[in-house]
Amino acid sequence: MPDTIEYEDINYTVEDPVAIIEFNREDRLNAASDKMLAELRHACAQAEADSAVVGIIITGKGRGFCAGRDIAPGGASGPSKPEGDGSLPVELGDPDVGEGYARSYAYLATLRKPVIAAVNGPCVGLGFVLAMMCDMRYIAEDAYFMSAFGQRGLVAENGIAWMMPRMIGIGRSLEILWSSRKVRGTEAAELGLAEKCVPGDQLIDEAKAFIQMLADTVAPSSIHAMKKQLFRSLELDFGTAFDESRQALAEARASGDVTEGMTAFREKRPPNFKRIGAD
Amino acid sequence: MPDTIEYEDINYTVEDPVAIIEFNREDRLNAASDKMLAELRHACAQAEADSAVVGIIITGKGRGFCAGRDIAPGGASGPSKPEGDGSLPVELGDPDVGEGYARSYAYLATLRKPVIAAVNGPCVGLGFVLAMMCDMRYIAEDAYFMSAFGQRGLVAENGIAWMMPRMIGIGRSLEILWSSRKVRGTEAAELGLAEKCVPGDQLIDEAKAFIQMLADTVAPSSIHAMKKQLFRSLELDFGTAFDESRQALAEARASGDVTEGMTAFREKRPPNFKRIGAD
Amino acid sequence: MPDTIEYEDINYTVEDPVAIIEFNREDRLNAASDKMLAELRHACAQAEADSAVVGIIITGKGRGFCAGRDIAPGGASGPSKPEGDGSLPVELGDPDVGEGYARSYAYLATLRKPVIAAVNGPCVGLGFVLAMMCDMRYIAEDAYFMSAFGQRGLVAENGIAWMMPRMIGIGRSLEILWSSRKVRGTEAAELGLAEKCVPGDQLIDEAKAFIQMLADTVAPSSIHAMKKQLFRSLELDFGTAFDESRQALAEARASGDVTEGMTAFREKRPPNFKRIGAD
Repeated sequence: MPDTIEYEDINYTVEDPVAIIEFNREDRLNAASDKMLAELRHACAQAEADSAVVGIIITGKGRGFCAGRDIAPGGASGPSKPEGDGSLPVELGDPDVGEGYARSYAYLATLRKPVIAAVNGPCVGLGFVLAMMCDMRYIAEDAYFMSAFGQRGLVAENGIAWMMPRMIGIGRSLEILWSSRKVRGTEAAELGLAEKCVPGDQLIDEAKAFIQMLADTVAPSSIHAMKKQLFRSLELDFGTAFDESRQALAEARASGDVTEGMTAFREKRPPNFKRIGAD
Repeated sequence: MPDTIEYEDINYTVEDPVAIIEFNREDRLNAASDKMLAELRHACAQAEADSAVVGIIITGKGRGFCAGRDIAPGGASGPSKPEGDGSLPVELGDPDVGEGYARSYAYLATLRKPVIAAVNGPCVGLGFVLAMMCDMRYIAEDAYFMSAFGQRGLVAENGIAWMMPRMIGIGRSLEILWSSRKVRGTEAAELGLAEKCVPGDQLIDEAKAFIQMLADTVAPSSIHAMKKQLFRSLELDFGTAFDESRQALAEARASGDVTEGMTAFREKRPPNFKRIGAD
Repeated sequence: MPDTIEYEDINYTVEDPVAIIEFNREDRLNAASDKMLAELRHACAQAEADSAVVGIIITGKGRGFCAGRDIAPGGASGPSKPEGDGSLPVELGDPDVGEGYARSYAYLATLRKPVIAAVNGPCVGLGFVLAMMCDMRYIAEDAYFMSAFGQRGLVAENGIAWMMPRMIGIGRSLEILWSSRKVRGTEAAELGLAEKCVPGDQLIDEAKAFIQMLADTVAPSSIHAMKKQLFRSLELDFGTAFDESRQALAEARASGDVTEGMTAFREKRPPNFKRIGAD
């Protein structure tokens, strides 16, 4: 698999163990075109299938992360079409995470690998939705989240109405969604909209370091299992989630990763876990 | 519709775009009488039906917000009767928010307009419940929340047992509900029991400014739609919530508000959205 | 009932109104043996049945809280067997909290009395799970939580995948579970993984003081009812939770505790509530 795949509205780079997907519409502050969204999905499928990739970073080129859906001519129009134009059909994600998450950009939650949004600048509207659907968010100090739905007569789109209250509670979600005020890096991390706020010039390095650390020390099968467990558990009662954790544990024991983890621990050496990928 | 309606145990004032409902039992720290609760509900119905009102503020006269249910003679006795004494029958709220929220004070979650509790002083027992059922809470620095249930042999009443863990987690909710300790403004905002802590003398002005900002920039239909989405989403799985967001978006597009929002944006002028009300 | 019961892998002490369960495998940083887990459960049953006990503290002897499941010879092996070796059969907990919570260590959520984890040192793996299943967590400044699952090829075990996102959101949960980084006292309290961070030498005293305060001022029946309400509400829709709160209130009124609470309040004297226990 090549280290670089040519797209138009994104850049895609793999440097083991990290795949970086960079929105590449700098002159539009990375406002999302249909093509950009289709390429994002395609690149995620590539990264999931590539054993050189342990984790995925999504970021924006230039000053912005994503300024929302592009409503200018040449951008998108009408309802979201995250499946793209049909020229890039791809399968991706673990269907066992649940049928609900198959919708729209929630496929990010079904990917078998961590997805970190590295929010480098304005993250608005659809950009805000995309960031909230990632597993984690690193945000630059001067970057910001902004809903911008209400100022256009719109609603809380694409599942953000479900995800945000489960991250920061309903009152804070309403305040932020209603007002469309800018929630900058420091506050975002305090509220729990982001997991980490860092100086802008360290943003990508910090996100890469997290994935490198995972690659060095954690079983990719465990990362996948825990991601699935947590997103599923949001929809389950305690008993069902518990029973599923027992099943997941049994599967982990049946794979070689538990044995490798325990052996490496006893032998005081780095573990050598199996990567996830088609190759 | 008159700017002022005469009640006894509350004061009700409308100054476009804000309706202020002020508990008016100052000598009892606004402990809730049956009449006060019935008038609160009636005033909410008035505010929802009045197109001059974009948002509602609930606060208390004098030093207190609400000291709980009044158990003295002349106050309330027995189980809560939020429907009042029958002399003020009113319909209110959006039934689509869900049948569950029709219960008791949860009608606040069904109102088509934002409801901000401006917590100016002690907010205890039933007062605490009322504040938690509002969409947002502004709290004065020296005001406080207090449960006071356990000291009377009571339980977590009227839905607060459901709402609090979804705002601040189960451990913090148990600690606060069990202990009946005072959670003052600054801590309340840090924990997420309030969205904002402000100096007491700026409390009402800050809450008014928030509603004024909404009235100036945000479509009332969007505010209503997002409120409904978020309260509904707390009870739904992701897929259903997502599908409903698509339906809500289609309805928004069918109304004129999306067109107005987009046009105003392009023309760099303030939007002129439709107000919500019977008139 | 004797004030001290002899166990091997735990110490159990009752000093009205507090029961302290101390993990007693200091040389293993209190890594959990099968016996330790069985004795924990047995001691919880004793404490629940003892009217001298209003609240339970779980802590560790020496430098550690619990270093995880003991995988050394003489420790545990294979899947968790929280029911122990069969020599200590006990019944405990309120079955009405829900069938789901009957699983494994979630019995802690069904106990009729508060359970506070006093996290005095490393709290790792299974220790982390046990702490998360307690009602509240006090943590020493230099103690820490750590998942350690992924480094061994394991998954998010025993219900922690369900509980953590409901405490601190899914992004922060993934970050902590995936990385196995140490979350120390101060950060744990900021995030909401612990309700309070205190200097290590005050840890037990602070936890005891909280239970003493409950014993002095709050009806044990109210504590029990609110605990049940909150854990149940995590699995319920709003309307059902509301209806159950009405039923719980009716039961509280039928007991003498509401009358005692109101009378003590009027007479300005400490309340004399009924303790919970078989004796």
